[in-house]
Amino acid sequence: MIYLDNAATTYPKPEEVYKAMDFVNRNLAMNPGRGGYSKAKEAENIIDETRNKLLKLAGGSDDYNVVLTPSATIALNEVIMGLSFREGENVYVSAFEHNAVMRTLHAAEKIYGFNIVELPLNEDLTIDIEKTKYMFSKDIPGKVFACHVSNVTGYILPVNEIANLAKEYEATVVVDASQSLGLVPIDLGQTHIDYMVFAGHKTLYGPLGIGGFFIKCGNNLRKYISGGTGTDSLNLEMPDNGIKGYEPASFNVVAAAGLNAALDEIKDNEAVETLFLREKELENYLVKELEKIHNVKLYVTGNVNSVGIVPFNIEGYKASETGMILDVDYDVAVRTGYHCAPLIHKYLKDTDYMGVVRASIGKFTTKEEIDGFVKAVRDIAEEY
Amino acid sequence: MIYLDNAATTYPKPEEVYKAMDFVNRNLAMNPGRGGYSKAKEAENIIDETRNKLLKLAGGSDDYNVVLTPSATIALNEVIMGLSFREGENVYVSAFEHNAVMRTLHAAEKIYGFNIVELPLNEDLTIDIEKTKYMFSKDIPGKVFACHVSNVTGYILPVNEIANLAKEYEATVVVDASQSLGLVPIDLGQTHIDYMVFAGHKTLYGPLGIGGFFIKCGNNLRKYISGGTGTDSLNLEMPDNGIKGYEPASFNVVAAAGLNAALDEIKDNEAVETLFLREKELENYLVKELEKIHNVKLYVTGNVNSVGIVPFNIEGYKASETGMILDVDYDVAVRTGYHCAPLIHKYLKDTDYMGVVRASIGKFTTKEEIDGFVKAVRDIAEEY
Repeated sequence: MIYLDNAATTYPKPEEVYKAMDFVNRNLAMNPGRGGYSKAKEAENIIDETRNKLLKLAGGSDDYNVVLTPSATIALNEVIMGLSFREGENVYVSAFEHNAVMRTLHAAEKIYGFNIVELPLNEDLTIDIEKTKYMFSKDIPGKVFACHVSNVTGYILPVNEIANLAKEYEATVVVDASQSLGLVPIDLGQTHIDYMVFAGHKTLYGPLGIGGFFIKCGNNLRKYISGGTGTDSLNLEMPDNGIKGYEPASFNVVAAAGLNAALDEIKDNEAVETLFLREKELENYLVKELEKIHNVKLYVTGNVNSVGIVPFNIEGYKASETGMILDVDYDVAVRTGYHCAPLIHKYLKDTDYMGVVRASIGKFTTKEEIDGFVKAVRDIAEEY
Repeated sequence: MIYLDNAATTYPKPEEVYKAMDFVNRNLAMNPGRGGYSKAKEAENIIDETRNKLLKLAGGSDDYNVVLTPSATIALNEVIMGLSFREGENVYVSAFEHNAVMRTLHAAEKIYGFNIVELPLNEDLTIDIEKTKYMFSKDIPGKVFACHVSNVTGYILPVNEIANLAKEYEATVVVDASQSLGLVPIDLGQTHIDYMVFAGHKTLYGPLGIGGFFIKCGNNLRKYISGGTGTDSLNLEMPDNGIKGYEPASFNVVAAAGLNAALDEIKDNEAVETLFLREKELENYLVKELEKIHNVKLYVTGNVNSVGIVPFNIEGYKASETGMILDVDYDVAVRTGYHCAPLIHKYLKDTDYMGVVRASIGKFTTKEEIDGFVKAVRDIAEEY
C-alpha cells in the first residue's frame, strides 16, 4: 500500500510508539491521579513527562500549561464552549477551519448570538493581512480562530501575524495546530496565542486517543465536560483552579505513553525543521510531477506557503471516483471529498468534483512511493 | 503487587486485548469512516463488530444502537447534556451516583432549573422500592438516574425495578453500567432503560480510551460534542439521524480493537454469570476474613446484594494512611478516599476517615492474593 492519507492520521508511527504503548498497557495501565500506589504514580509520571515535552516543543514552558484530552475535537469543544462570548461580538475565523472548530462555533453562536466573520483572502487564497487590519479596525475582533495548517490544502497560515493584530484589540486567539505541531515550528513564548489545540495522532506521530490544548497561564475556561477528577469528590462543582477541571475521567495513560515516546523523536524546533524540509521537498516534487499530467487539476499550489498536502482532481472523475480507483487498482490510500472543512470549498470551486482528492505526505513517505502514486494518477488521467 | 483496584480499572487485561491493540496499532490505525480505502474499511469493520458484540452482550440487538465514545464520562456528558429538561421537573438520582453523573447533572441543573431528588434508601442502604413508589406518585419523575453497581460499595441496584416504576410516569431512565457490564447480567430487551452507559476498561476488560452508551431506537439527543463526522461536511449542523452525530473526531480504532477482543471472552449472560459467581465467592471470603480482624470497620456488607467491592477502614488510620501503608509495606494496590461518589458518604458516615479504603476484585484476582491482602490488613490493624 502507498499510504498518502497522513493528514487524516500519520501512518506508520515510530516503532518506539508501538513499544511504549504495549509496555504501558501490560504494566502501567492503572489510574493515574487516583490510586496512591506506586504503579499509579509511575503512570502519572508518564503523563507529566508528556506535558513537559509538549511545552518544550512548543516553546511554552514558562507561560503555558498543557491539558490532555481524548482528541483535538474534545479539546476544541472544551476551549470554544468554555469561552465567554458577548452578544454581537465579532468572532473571526479563517476559511480553512475544520468542523471541529466551525460546528462547535456554530453551536456556541446559537447560544450567544455572536457574529462569525471570515478572515479575508487574497486571490491566491492566502490570508490578506492588510485587509484583515482594516476589518479588525472596523469590526473589532472579540475572538479570532485560525488553524496553523489547512487540512485541505496544507497552507501554513500566518498565525503569529494574525495573533499580533488580534492582540491590539485584546481579542482571544485560538489556534488549531492539529495539522502542524511537530511539523511546522512554533514558539508560543513569542506569540499572542491564548489557546493552541493539537492532535496526538497527526503531525506528532503519536497514537489515536490523545490530543489537547496549550492554555496561557492566567486564562480560565468554564468547564464544559463534567466528571470525576479524583479530587474534591464531595464538591459538585468541577475544580476551577489548575488543569484538573479540564481532564475528568480515567486518564488514557496508554495513549499518553505513545505520545510521550513520539515526542522523543521531535524534541525541539530543529528536529521539526528537518522534518518540514524533507516533507516540503517531497511535496514540491509531487506537485511538479502532477503538473506535467494533462487532465490533472491542482488546487492552490504555486505561490502558496504550504506543507505536505496536495489537493487535486482528475478531469472526468468525481473526487471519490478517483479515490476508489486509486485504492482498488493501485493500492493507494488517499482521502477524498470535503475533508470536514466547510468554508474553503467555495474558494476552491471544487463542488463539481464533490471535493478534492487529497494526497498527504508523512515522514515515512518515500520518493519511490511518490513515483508510484504519480504513475497511478497518470494512468487514470490518460485513460479518460 | 497484589492489585485490588479493579473498580478503577481492571488489571491485567486478557492477553488477546494487548495483542489486538498492538496489531491494529501497527496495521490498521487509519481513519475509519473517512478514508474510502480498504484498510480504513477494515478498521470500520472492527468498530461495527464491537458494536454488535456489545448489543448481543446486553441483549439489546433489536431495540438499541451503540454509540462509542472515548470514555464513560464523555458518554454521560453526551447523554445528560443532550436531554431536554423542563424547569421544575423532578430528576431522581440514586445516592450511589458517580461524579460523571452528579457533576454533569449539577451543570445541567444550573441551566435548566430542575429538582434533583435522591431515591430513598432502607437502613441497610439498599434502594427502598416501596418508598420510591410513594415518592414517584407524589413528585412525578421526569428523569431517573441509577448506576447498576456502586463504585464505592459494590451494591447492585435494582435498576429493572426502578426503570419499571419510572416508566409508569414515562420518565426517561439512564443507567450507568460502568461498574457492571460484563459482570452483572442485564437484558436490555426486558427493561425500560432509555440510555445505558458503559466503560470499556472496567468490568468489560477492554482498554482505557473507550466507552459509550446504548441508546433506545427512536430516542434522540441534542448533540453536545461538535466536530467532523466525515459526512455532510459542508453542513454546520451535526448530523441528526443515526449515531454519527454522537461520534465526532478521528475514531480510536486501537481502543475499539482492544474492546472487541475483550468482548470475545464475555460473549453472553452465561459467561457473565460465571464471572459474577467467582467474584462473589472471593468477595464473600474476603468479607468473612476481614470480619475476624478486630479494629477493621466494614461498610454495608451483611445483607447487601453486592459484587467485587469491599469498602473498609482500620481504626486509628485515615483511609489514605491505610492505603499508603498497604502500598509501601505490602505492595498492595487499593484506592482510598471518596471515589468520585459525592452522595453516599453521608450514609456511610466515613468522613472521620476521609472516605473508605476500597478493595476491589477482578477476574484475575486469586484466593492467594486475598489471603496476602488479609494478612497485610491484620498486621496493620494489630499494630495499632
